[in-house]
Amino acid sequence: MKNIIIASTSALHGGGPLEYLLDELKLFFKDTPEILFIPYARPGGISYDDYTEKVSVPFKSIDKTVKGIHEFEDPKEAIKQAKAIFIGGGNTFVLVNQLYKNGLWEPIKNEVKNGTPYLGTSAGSNICGLTMNTTNDMPIVYPPSFKTFGFVPFNINPHYQDPDLNSKHIGETRETRIKEFHEFNSQPVVGLREGSWLEVKDKSIVLKGNLDARVFEYHKAAYEVKVDTELNILK
Amino acid sequence: MKNIIIASTSALHGGGPLEYLLDELKLFFKDTPEILFIPYARPGGISYDDYTEKVSVPFKSIDKTVKGIHEFEDPKEAIKQAKAIFIGGGNTFVLVNQLYKNGLWEPIKNEVKNGTPYLGTSAGSNICGLTMNTTNDMPIVYPPSFKTFGFVPFNINPHYQDPDLNSKHIGETRETRIKEFHEFNSQPVVGLREGSWLEVKDKSIVLKGNLDARVFEYHKAAYEVKVDTELNILK
Repeated sequence: MKNIIIASTSALHGGGPLEYLLDELKLFFKDTPEILFIPYARPGGISYDDYTEKVSVPFKSIDKTVKGIHEFEDPKEAIKQAKAIFIGGGNTFVLVNQLYKNGLWEPIKNEVKNGTPYLGTSAGSNICGLTMNTTNDMPIVYPPSFKTFGFVPFNINPHYQDPDLNSKHIGETRETRIKEFHEFNSQPVVGLREGSWLEVKDKSIVLKGNLDARVFEYHKAAYEVKVDTELNILK
Repeated sequence: MKNIIIASTSALHGGGPLEYLLDELKLFFKDTPEILFIPYARPGGISYDDYTEKVSVPFKSIDKTVKGIHEFEDPKEAIKQAKAIFIGGGNTFVLVNQLYKNGLWEPIKNEVKNGTPYLGTSAGSNICGLTMNTTNDMPIVYPPSFKTFGFVPFNINPHYQDPDLNSKHIGETRETRIKEFHEFNSQPVVGLREGSWLEVKDKSIVLKGNLDARVFEYHKAAYEVKVDTELNILK
């Protein structure tokens, strides 16, 4: 029985970390006062301690304690004991590299499949897809593989951005990049706009938040899906 | 005796492919009527044939013939025979992957070190640095390594963009990303703005074009360098 929130971003413009999600998280984490946080993505290269402390603040406001996985002697054992897991944003390459280094893919997968609630934001959401090939991050380290959890049968593109029609910069739009991805890969991609999330409950995958999402299927025109759409038909 | 042009982009906003560089290229390629083109980066996933044909157009206007490396039976032999080499833009991961697949790193390195003129634009410029860790591209394929030519003793960030102070998107600026790179790597990074290029002649590396470049050194504040600055002191 999977129980997962895959959120596009940790914060909205002008809002504090997780602020827009707090009501949702109160419900999501209702059965546990303590959350195991995995700070490996290190946004801006901050330390595990600093990142964990930063994340503790919004959780404190809903009476949850956050403990960083680096505070445990044995990270695999920490995963096994965890009542809830949160992987935050930062750099997806750095995050994926560290999860491989510490051999945590299978342990986390097992616990999440057995019902441990998992919250991902940004990089922590990207890795819920089949591979990290649709991350927006700079490849500042070289991970041993781009394969990720596959909690959903497609790829995630977090922080999905619509084309800026006024831009004079010769750069690809996000849509162009994902189309290019489909020249080399066939799995669908879900572009999650900031403030949107996927709610995964067992076999169900539903779009939540206030915004539509953009879906890219292999050799099909991209299309919009509305909030509350069931996405488990994608494959 | 290296002879290299490392250009940020192939085209400026509103300009045709290579248009802004053509006067320079006339001089650069003055000793050869034929250029070997490596279309591996496949912008937008276009075919090698289509990409080669597209690139031929501007070169025709300066009386140069372009031949794609895919038109040769043996790509390594094609490199050896080439009087000049051009690697164009597209996706850096796709380009690097294909160069590894075809075993072309050493052959190209050898020829360029022996004086074969090399023109790179965008992805083709990125790989002139030590590694491709500072590309802006989406990692749509997984190359066997991020190590690249190292024609210059630093990394390149092509299409360098200044922060957009009006943006409400929660995304990192280019400068933030490069600072993050320096949490995990120590080589300098040169951010080349669109329309700028580096002219490499043997041991000299000079900034050309109309715009300053932004230099990022390990644990130092980023700074601007003017056109005509000698950059071979970076390391």
